[in-house]
Amino acid sequence: MSTAPSFESATYRPPNWDAICEAHARIAPRIHRTPILTSASLDSLAGARLFFKCENLQKTGSFKIRGASNAIFSLSNEQAARGIVTQSSGNHGAAVACAAAWRGVPAYIVMPKNAPKVKIQAIEAYGGKITFCEPKVSSRNKTCDRVQAETGAHLVHPYDDDCIIAGQATAAKELLEDMSDLDAVFAPVSGGGLLSGTCLGAKGIRAAIRIFGCEPSRADDAYRSLTTGTLQSLESSDTIADGLRASLAPRTFAILRKHVERILLVSEEEIISTARLVWERMKIIIEPSSAVALAPLLKHGVVQSLNLPPRSDGAAPKLGVIFSGGNVDLTSLPWPVRTT
Amino acid sequence: MSTAPSFESATYRPPNWDAICEAHARIAPRIHRTPILTSASLDSLAGARLFFKCENLQKTGSFKIRGASNAIFSLSNEQAARGIVTQSSGNHGAAVACAAAWRGVPAYIVMPKNAPKVKIQAIEAYGGKITFCEPKVSSRNKTCDRVQAETGAHLVHPYDDDCIIAGQATAAKELLEDMSDLDAVFAPVSGGGLLSGTCLGAKGIRAAIRIFGCEPSRADDAYRSLTTGTLQSLESSDTIADGLRASLAPRTFAILRKHVERILLVSEEEIISTARLVWERMKIIIEPSSAVALAPLLKHGVVQSLNLPPRSDGAAPKLGVIFSGGNVDLTSLPWPVRTT
Repeated sequence: MSTAPSFESATYRPPNWDAICEAHARIAPRIHRTPILTSASLDSLAGARLFFKCENLQKTGSFKIRGASNAIFSLSNEQAARGIVTQSSGNHGAAVACAAAWRGVPAYIVMPKNAPKVKIQAIEAYGGKITFCEPKVSSRNKTCDRVQAETGAHLVHPYDDDCIIAGQATAAKELLEDMSDLDAVFAPVSGGGLLSGTCLGAKGIRAAIRIFGCEPSRADDAYRSLTTGTLQSLESSDTIADGLRASLAPRTFAILRKHVERILLVSEEEIISTARLVWERMKIIIEPSSAVALAPLLKHGVVQSLNLPPRSDGAAPKLGVIFSGGNVDLTSLPWPVRTT
Repeated sequence: MSTAPSFESATYRPPNWDAICEAHARIAPRIHRTPILTSASLDSLAGARLFFKCENLQKTGSFKIRGASNAIFSLSNEQAARGIVTQSSGNHGAAVACAAAWRGVPAYIVMPKNAPKVKIQAIEAYGGKITFCEPKVSSRNKTCDRVQAETGAHLVHPYDDDCIIAGQATAAKELLEDMSDLDAVFAPVSGGGLLSGTCLGAKGIRAAIRIFGCEPSRADDAYRSLTTGTLQSLESSDTIADGLRASLAPRTFAILRKHVERILLVSEEEIISTARLVWERMKIIIEPSSAVALAPLLKHGVVQSLNLPPRSDGAAPKLGVIFSGGNVDLTSLPWPVRTT
C-alpha cells in the first residue's frame, strides 16, 4: 500500500493549525460534537479528575469518521469519482464507507478475515464493498494495492495521510475547547492517526499540555519505536483491542517522536477489567481499544509517576481521556454472561 | 406507607414553576447536566427526529437523584438528623442512599427481595442500610412503616411527594432549555414521578407540548387509571422493566390526568429488542425501563397515529425521549451472549 506524495521524514511538516481548523469546519456539520463525560467513582480510583471525550458516541461509533470525512470531502469530484479504497480492521472501513456514501461514491474496503463480525456488518450496512485478506500487514497492503489497481479508486490510508491526521485532530481540539485547563491527554495508539492528531489538536490550544499514548503490551510497536528511536514493525498481533493491531507509519512516527511524552503499556486483563468498569460505572459502551487509554490510569501509582507539573489550584490533575470507539459485538463479551 | 400532609385530590396544587426552578438551583451543583444525544438510524426507524435526554448517564445511573437530592436537601437539619427512609425497587433507593451520604445522614432502604443484584450492590456501595420485603406493594408499605417507626427517620416517598416531583421535573426542564421546539416528550411511567415532572417541566417552558407516558403491558396501571378515570392498583408485576413495577399515587394521578395525552403500551419483546438496539446503535447502556419510552415510537405507524400538529417547518416531528436509567446487571442480559 503506497502513499503519495512520497514521504521524506527529515523534511516532513505535519498539518498546521490552519489545516486542522479547515478540517473542523469541513466535517463539523456532518458529525456529532461528542459529549465530555465525567465519573466521580473513576476519579476516585485514578486519583485525578478525568474528562472523557466520548468518540464511542460519534457517528459510525468511532472517531474515524473525523479523518475519513475530512479526507473524502477534500477530494475533487474527479478524484472521488471512481470511489475510495482503504484497508481497515473495522472502524476506519466503516467511516470510509459512511463518508463515501455521503459523498455518493463507492467504497472498497480491504479488511482482515478475523475482523469482528459487527464491524464487517457495519461496513456492509453503509454499502461498502469488502475484500478480505490475511490478518498480516503485508497481506493487507498487497490486497489493497490490487483492489486499487483494479478499480482506479482513490486511496485513503487509515493514518499515514495528512488529511486523516488533521481530521482526527479535531477530537482533541474539541476537548480542549471545552476543557482548556487539562494537564495531559491520553489516547490509544495503533497506526498513530488518533494520537498524532491528539498531539496537534491539543497543543494547538494549550502548548504546555502533556500527551501520553496508551498501547496493549501485545501490540507494543509504538512503545518500541519511541524507545529505540527507530520505526518498529508489528507483523501480527492478537490483542483483544481489535482496533489497535496496526503499526506506526512514517508520518505518525515523526509526530509522536516530537510530541508524545511516553507510551504506557497495559495487559489484556487490564483492558478487559477497565472496559467492564466503564460499562458499569459510566453506562456507556466502549470497545476494548478505548479502555486502553484509561487502563494505565487505574493502576496504583501511575498518575503520580507521570511527573505532571503541580497545578496552580493545588488540586488533583485534570486529565483528558479519549474513548476512541464503541463498536463491540453484543453477543460476544469478555466476561461470563447468562441469558435471562 | 403514609404521606404527610394528608392528600386532598380535589384541592391538590402540584409544584409550580418557582418550585421547579428552586429545585433545579438546589440540585444542579450536585448532579450532571446530562447530554442530549441523537441517532440518525433511530430517526430513520421512527420517522421522526428524536432527542434522547440521557438520564442513564446521570449520577447514580438514573434520574432518581434529581428528586432524592431535592427532597433531602430541602429538609432542615432537625428533620434530616435521624436519617431518611424509603422503599424502592432500586434506583430511588440508590439515589436516596447517595444524597443522604452527601448530606451526612443514614439512609434506610426497603426493597423487594427480587430486586436486581446490581441495584442492591449500588445501594450498599453508597452506605444505605437495606431491609428486604416481599415484592408486593402491600408488603413494601408495611415494611417501610415499620422501619420508619423503629428509626424515626424521615420518609422520602419515591414519587407521591412534591419535592420529588419538582426534582424529577428538572430533567424535562433541561431538555426543553436545550431543545425548545420539541413537539412532544415521551417518558416511562411507573409511580408517575418522572412523568408528572416531565409534564410540569416541559409545559413550563412550552405550554403546547404534548406529553405521552409509556408503560409495559404487563404493568399497565397508569393506562387503566387514565382510561377509566379512577386510580387503579397494581398489586404485583413481572415485567423485565424492573423500574416500572410500582403504581400511580394520588398526586401523580392528578397531574397525569390533567397533562398526559395518553399512555402507550409495549410488550416485553419490544422492550428487549429496543434496549438492544439502543446499545448497538447509540453505544449507551440503558436499562429496560428506559427502552419502554422509545419502544412505541419504533412500531409501524405509531408516530403518525399521535396526531401531532404539523410543524411550521414542514419537517418530521421533533420528539424528546427520556432515558430514565442505565442500571443493569452486565452478567445477566436478555439475549444470548457467549464469552470470548
